[in-house]
Amino acid sequence: MGKNNIIGKHLIADFSGAAYQTDREKIEYAMRSAATHAGATVLNVKLHSFASNGGITGVALLAESHISVHSWPELDYIAFDIFMCGKAEPELALQWLKEFFKPVRVTTQLIERAAP
Amino acid sequence: MGKNNIIGKHLIADFSGAAYQTDREKIEYAMRSAATHAGATVLNVKLHSFASNGGITGVALLAESHISVHSWPELDYIAFDIFMCGKAEPELALQWLKEFFKPVRVTTQLIERAAP
Repeated sequence: MGKNNIIGKHLIADFSGAAYQTDREKIEYAMRSAATHAGATVLNVKLHSFASNGGITGVALLAESHISVHSWPELDYIAFDIFMCGKAEPELALQWLKEFFKPVRVTTQLIERAAP
Repeated sequence: MGKNNIIGKHLIADFSGAAYQTDREKIEYAMRSAATHAGATVLNVKLHSFASNGGITGVALLAESHISVHSWPELDYIAFDIFMCGKAEPELALQWLKEFFKPVRVTTQLIERAAP
């Protein structure tokens, strides 16, 4: 599959030791700001808090695809996905999320999405 | 990272030659059914149609994480993500999506998500 066929860049990012793992308002703000920093347009944001553990699950739907977040505070883990097509730059969103949540450990993976 | 640390299974699936690339109702039905087939619980579904090309972008937020869809009908491409934790089985959701959309070509990738 050639470089010309890539339709979107999808960053998978896993954080440990991050701030705000149960803070729905902070997480919503962070997702909206990350999208803006990447040059993306937010269509809709939906977040849900779990009563059982305080974890947050949510998605920012973008004109350029999505940013998702799922946190497991009892495991000290936040999972982000940043999937963007067009001219938006998911790396800038990830950089912003790292500055905001200040994780102690981060793993990231870039998946180039394309029609098979 | 040991197998014991895996928190969620994340299936990345790219379809070409699939049905219903611009059909919002069919896509919503498919996402809800796929979640049910996987043993997951849907919290919320949000879909958006693009006037420019008829493409659909959307997410089903699950108690177990999410299913997302983004279609580019002009490129004959639908991108799915199926991310599920706990006892839900994302492979069953993907199998159901393949039966429903009948893609001509499919590529899939499994990412085991875990705290770093």
